Amino acid sequence: MTPPAFSDIQAAMQRLQGKVKRTPIVESTLLNKWLGHRILFKAECLQTVGAFKLRGALNMLARCAEENRLPRRVVANSSGNHAQAVAQAASMYQLPVTIYAARSISPVKAAATRSYGAQLELFDTRPQADEAIKLAAQEESTLWIPPFDHADIIAGQGTAALEALEDAGPVDAVFAPCGGGGLLSGTLLATRHLQPEAKVIGAEPEQANDAAMSLQSGVIEQLTGTPDTLADGAATPSVGVQTFEFLQQLDDFYEVNEVQIAYWTQWLQHLLKLHIEPTCAMTMAAVTAWAVENPTPGTALVMLSGGNISATSMQKIWAQDYLLQPPVITNPEQ
Amino acid sequence: MTPPAFSDIQAAMQRLQGKVKRTPIVESTLLNKWLGHRILFKAECLQTVGAFKLRGALNMLARCAEENRLPRRVVANSSGNHAQAVAQAASMYQLPVTIYAARSISPVKAAATRSYGAQLELFDTRPQADEAIKLAAQEESTLWIPPFDHADIIAGQGTAALEALEDAGPVDAVFAPCGGGGLLSGTLLATRHLQPEAKVIGAEPEQANDAAMSLQSGVIEQLTGTPDTLADGAATPSVGVQTFEFLQQLDDFYEVNEVQIAYWTQWLQHLLKLHIEPTCAMTMAAVTAWAVENPTPGTALVMLSGGNISATSMQKIWAQDYLLQPPVITNPEQ
Repeated sequence: MTPPAFSDIQAAMQRLQGKVKRTPIVESTLLNKWLGHRILFKAECLQTVGAFKLRGALNMLARCAEENRLPRRVVANSSGNHAQAVAQAASMYQLPVTIYAARSISPVKAAATRSYGAQLELFDTRPQADEAIKLAAQEESTLWIPPFDHADIIAGQGTAALEALEDAGPVDAVFAPCGGGGLLSGTLLATRHLQPEAKVIGAEPEQANDAAMSLQSGVIEQLTGTPDTLADGAATPSVGVQTFEFLQQLDDFYEVNEVQIAYWTQWLQHLLKLHIEPTCAMTMAAVTAWAVENPTPGTALVMLSGGNISATSMQKIWAQDYLLQPPVITNPEQ
Repeated sequence: MTPPAFSDIQAAMQRLQGKVKRTPIVESTLLNKWLGHRILFKAECLQTVGAFKLRGALNMLARCAEENRLPRRVVANSSGNHAQAVAQAASMYQLPVTIYAARSISPVKAAATRSYGAQLELFDTRPQADEAIKLAAQEESTLWIPPFDHADIIAGQGTAALEALEDAGPVDAVFAPCGGGGLLSGTLLATRHLQPEAKVIGAEPEQANDAAMSLQSGVIEQLTGTPDTLADGAATPSVGVQTFEFLQQLDDFYEVNEVQIAYWTQWLQHLLKLHIEPTCAMTMAAVTAWAVENPTPGTALVMLSGGNISATSMQKIWAQDYLLQPPVITNPEQ
């Protein structure tokens, strides 16, 4: 359980070359004017499988290939972006892959996961799926790709920030959402090395605030029950042992309510013309708080983690009309 | 009223260099698999102002500048993408601009138009706005930029297809939505010259089928009343004299119902991760019809015209869950 170093992100970058997309940095002139800062967005929603998750899963497998220890079979337990990422990564190495999930997996995510070549094993409950995968992972030459708490995964996710910081140039702050903490940990590691002056700031839903509770108590706290949040990518019950080490080095951390999440999902979809999931739009509540506290015009980088959204979530996101009130926070006298 | 030639599109391309974005071509591996054809999308939703409309308006003004006849003031009547395009184009030449619109203009479009530097003159009804602009346009050194029926506008819009065909390479068919016919005319002109073998196919809403009626009768027909369609960019009451000449040269033309429009808007937003407006998603109904009629795998180019969508439209688009039924049209035995 050695934590990843910056050199691991650089090694991952080499491994992923030509296998993942170098997603673009986008921005909105209007939003910049309204916030009084330049906000750059790393559009990982345009990544293959629609999320940054491919980076970590593929890094783990590509490293196995490099070290001549490719398994004969890959397994993972997830009903979200990680399932699609593992399915796609395994198919790139022509490896059979089984995803263990609850029967409640959304049909569109199940269809997408299958279309990347995975077999789905469905169980009545998620805990049943989690038990079944433990057994499956003990079979010979089977690799269980975890969603976040592994050096290869964290290093892989860190390549998104590495690319973004190279493309963006100097920034004052970097923002990423926090689920299990893989993206945020990789982002912190890359930023501390490349731009040590830049703040690194995380955000999670108020409704799934295990990371905030953990940062306050100093030990990893668990959510009880299923959190009711639009930011489903950040509904993870707890952060990991490795990721928690990184999260404790953050400069700031915000808890975001459901109205703010829907508000910013609408505005980012509208302004950037990207189909962005609530999990990453959430970080904008932290960005505006930072913008208000830092009136001198600066530059922020926001990691847009993905764009996989169910129709049910889209209905909730757009139930109110938040576009009537532009998010102007600069002094109108300026 | 000389119609534009292909050389006018080439001249427009020169003029717009560095002033408009060369938007990317995107595609979905899943969609290609499902349709049995490669479908390339020209993402003009990522254009400045969120639509191809900037190309035509800017071409008209840039040509004025080239010929030393820049006006002192610009006016336009629109409550949609054209208003924002004219506002942005005029601001690039530091010209004052007034947009004449009905008071019913959506607040988000009004805010966007103002933010590009335009003054808004609002009237109780659209006909009142249209009357007022006729008077205003007679004032000295005032340029009225029309939405579609002008050689400079058609040539400007044609640059989107010119770029797309250069980037895409050989294609079998090109699809574009039809409102007033500016984009579709420019697309036809560019395609006939660059890839004369490629079919050029248009689509419009069943609820606003004036172009289909006009193509059938051979004379320009007018819609009566305000059409109730999600594809608001194609709700224009009639095509123009110049654009009708081009539309009559199309290889095929489809009328699309509201369920198909919502269905394809959901799927394109989901698969391409782009915030695409219903007006351009509409063309996918024509693409699938073409795909069924042409079972030999081919390549189609689809002009994604824009991404400006009100919250009300988003609510209507996502009211049903169409993601449950993937748009598989290929023979599953293949």
